[in-house]
Amino acid sequence: MTYQPHGHHLIAGERVDSGARFDSSPVTGPAHSFCRGGAGEVDRAARAADAAFPAFSRTTRDERAVFLERIADEIEARAEDLTRLAVAETGLPQARIQGERGRTTGQLRLFATHIRKGAYLDLRVDEALPDRQPPRPELRMVQRPLGPVAVFGASNFPLAFSTAGGDTASALAAGCPVVVKGHQAHPATGEIVAEAIDAARRACGLDAGVFSLVQSDSREAGTALVTHPLISAVGFTGSLAGGRALFDLCARRAEPIPFFGELGSINPVFVLDGALATRGTDIASGWAQSLAMGAGQFCTNPGLLVIDAAAADNFVAAALATLAEVPAQTMLTDGIATAFRNGADELSALAGGSLCAARESGAREAVPVLLRTDAARFLAEPKLAEEVFGPLGLVVTVASDAERLELARGLKGQLTATLQMEAADNATAAALMPVLERKAGRVLVNGFPTGVEVCDAMVHGGPYPASTNFGATSVGTLAIRRFLRPVCFQNVPAELLPEDAAN
Amino acid sequence: MTYQPHGHHLIAGERVDSGARFDSSPVTGPAHSFCRGGAGEVDRAARAADAAFPAFSRTTRDERAVFLERIADEIEARAEDLTRLAVAETGLPQARIQGERGRTTGQLRLFATHIRKGAYLDLRVDEALPDRQPPRPELRMVQRPLGPVAVFGASNFPLAFSTAGGDTASALAAGCPVVVKGHQAHPATGEIVAEAIDAARRACGLDAGVFSLVQSDSREAGTALVTHPLISAVGFTGSLAGGRALFDLCARRAEPIPFFGELGSINPVFVLDGALATRGTDIASGWAQSLAMGAGQFCTNPGLLVIDAAAADNFVAAALATLAEVPAQTMLTDGIATAFRNGADELSALAGGSLCAARESGAREAVPVLLRTDAARFLAEPKLAEEVFGPLGLVVTVASDAERLELARGLKGQLTATLQMEAADNATAAALMPVLERKAGRVLVNGFPTGVEVCDAMVHGGPYPASTNFGATSVGTLAIRRFLRPVCFQNVPAELLPEDAAN
Repeated sequence: MTYQPHGHHLIAGERVDSGARFDSSPVTGPAHSFCRGGAGEVDRAARAADAAFPAFSRTTRDERAVFLERIADEIEARAEDLTRLAVAETGLPQARIQGERGRTTGQLRLFATHIRKGAYLDLRVDEALPDRQPPRPELRMVQRPLGPVAVFGASNFPLAFSTAGGDTASALAAGCPVVVKGHQAHPATGEIVAEAIDAARRACGLDAGVFSLVQSDSREAGTALVTHPLISAVGFTGSLAGGRALFDLCARRAEPIPFFGELGSINPVFVLDGALATRGTDIASGWAQSLAMGAGQFCTNPGLLVIDAAAADNFVAAALATLAEVPAQTMLTDGIATAFRNGADELSALAGGSLCAARESGAREAVPVLLRTDAARFLAEPKLAEEVFGPLGLVVTVASDAERLELARGLKGQLTATLQMEAADNATAAALMPVLERKAGRVLVNGFPTGVEVCDAMVHGGPYPASTNFGATSVGTLAIRRFLRPVCFQNVPAELLPEDAAN
Repeated sequence: MTYQPHGHHLIAGERVDSGARFDSSPVTGPAHSFCRGGAGEVDRAARAADAAFPAFSRTTRDERAVFLERIADEIEARAEDLTRLAVAETGLPQARIQGERGRTTGQLRLFATHIRKGAYLDLRVDEALPDRQPPRPELRMVQRPLGPVAVFGASNFPLAFSTAGGDTASALAAGCPVVVKGHQAHPATGEIVAEAIDAARRACGLDAGVFSLVQSDSREAGTALVTHPLISAVGFTGSLAGGRALFDLCARRAEPIPFFGELGSINPVFVLDGALATRGTDIASGWAQSLAMGAGQFCTNPGLLVIDAAAADNFVAAALATLAEVPAQTMLTDGIATAFRNGADELSALAGGSLCAARESGAREAVPVLLRTDAARFLAEPKLAEEVFGPLGLVVTVASDAERLELARGLKGQLTATLQMEAADNATAAALMPVLERKAGRVLVNGFPTGVEVCDAMVHGGPYPASTNFGATSVGTLAIRRFLRPVCFQNVPAELLPEDAAN
């Protein structure tokens, strides 16, 4: 029997009907009706999360690991329904959704393993020195959970960056209850994942307030969530405009809270001359494929490519040949498709028009756009450096190593920066590296930035506007640090310490 | 020959005269004239810091350790002049300044040792998995310096939290150039310390832009500093009002930056019934001494004490007896003394008057103030929970364990929270601990919070309004983390990696 969305919020283990409604907009299959939550539902969820915090923050690491693993199991138990609903809602291919489910459950299990190890606690003990003058008491420091965390689902990863995605997994791993504001582009997907989390929560005997999902297609719920006095931190993946608005709300609170936002990036690729001479056509083709993959709807989509002017004609021709083979692709929502066309039109006008032949496409479809300009124009026109979410690539030509370096220095913060290089390019690369390291959270050589590995060494975040993750990452095990704070226990008897500080 | 202040800024190794001037206000000895810096001087210092960053961020850890140790040596070489100038400017006793100098040089040497060990780099390597589908490239993550850091000197620690204090030491240790906005209450002290830093910088052959001191007695310099586009983070110790204003400026920037502010706290002390019965008089006397020490001018001054109503009369009498012996003490500045009197008057009016006998005191002096109220009044009047910087103590009586817990839950964020307890109090303490842990950066048993140990396990920071140090500390080796960001290097050849990522 296939799962039928009930359309209610899931607040502290209860299905809550809040009256006002919105309809989902799947690409295929029937629309469903969902509750539009507001300040009342957010308040109920936040209070439940706060009430659940004292007990959840003192669960053992193993108890939370079992919970995370059970969530993964419960998601897998709903795999067929989940794939059907997510494919219908997002228009993403079935294989992509299945892969993303594996990434999501793998991520939950990775955090289970990570907290069992316990190294993330950064336990520090300065022993008592009773004979010193003045005597030193024993001091123990350990990382403790922050409090209830708000999570915003992302449109482009309905599983891995949404209801049970990296933000939720790392917050629960840390010992923080979570309130998710579901993304209106995939409410049924969010609902079934929330049911999986709640089933795991019940199976593990945890307080109901440990997890809530509030559905909404309006800004009211999100605003209420980040301004709620009982919310301690926010995890967000989305647009610069939306993210900055929420960041500002967090900073202006009577009690400001951290807003860990991942806001987007144009992910520059620098193709150096040696690489261009050796394998320019392959790079052009690989770049074009990376650019168009998944209709370009990735945070790490390599939207900007920097290349020597002398070789640009051949490179662009090879990229165009690849892009011509890319079919029109369905985008996540009508709004995203419209925003892509508008953004592409604006940048095309600034760059002298798209190099791709005009093609027909449906209202919710995108066809690739390739633009070309030179460094002087790029540096003079800040709009050209703004992200257009979708399959748009901008080739910027440089006339010298000095101009390439100047362009790199002029970049804003990025999630990633890539060098395509050969040994002959070492000197140029060595001059670029310190600049790129300062601009991006991840620096790659001879790869493309799409495909973000979930592992210990990953950094998904970068200087503003790529993120407001000052010193943090939203992917990989280090993501847990966002939801922890150090607490020092001075001369506290062992029986009064949290278990993690007592060892 | 004694040191004569030149009164100039020290910007990237040069003494800069900027025209407009202000006079220092020492308690003893002659005033000196100092330059009042503004946006121009800040811009010059920030540009120099930014220019110095690429090279300084790639110095070895040992090179920076040698630099920090040399700063400590250069400070010690100026010990006599430093003590003379700091005592005159702050009115603090000579022994206190000498002790604070030891703390300051000890802190610099501690960071030297800490970075030599290298564990703070949190190096993570996920090996390449070429045979996996899809293949995994090698991923290396390491903590890298953030960029130029702005530091604001604090009035109450002219050495340990000022020009070469914990913020400067941890930022330089991380590899970040520093621009200090000197505190107008001790400009000569700041100047001689800046000379020590610059002498060390020259001896180590580092770029001049690695350190600058801009002197000013106006807000313009501070505003220019935190809003300068080339500044990447701010370290601050000071008042809630001043700190919040700077926090807001940082958050509103086109490119927001982290503001690590330590803003103050009333540091509640809970005296539980068993401790009260066993050693109530000793605790009262110890608390009163801690409260009045250094004219109460410590961030960790225990301004609030919570006690069972039935035992309060005896406790208060014992505290009063100790406070009666405390002489009038010179405060750091005339402004701080005036603010103390005004704040004490306001709280006294709310609490029904000071319990201390009226005493004469000079314009820049403070005499202790002891107030008493009950939990209901305390919870109903938020003003009573605000910090009054100086020797003011407020005893709040509770009628039950439940009321004590309610009061604890109603507290705002604190730097510290203290339990005075005996074994008989274990159940009460166990109920309070999870609440206090969430309210404070440091939880103490059977001590007083003044005297902040500089060590690995220290946390000096806490939930807002105690700090805007989300997940960080401004004292202890963990303080370095504020000025680092993780960078992931994917498939980057060893010769292009920063040395710390290559090992």
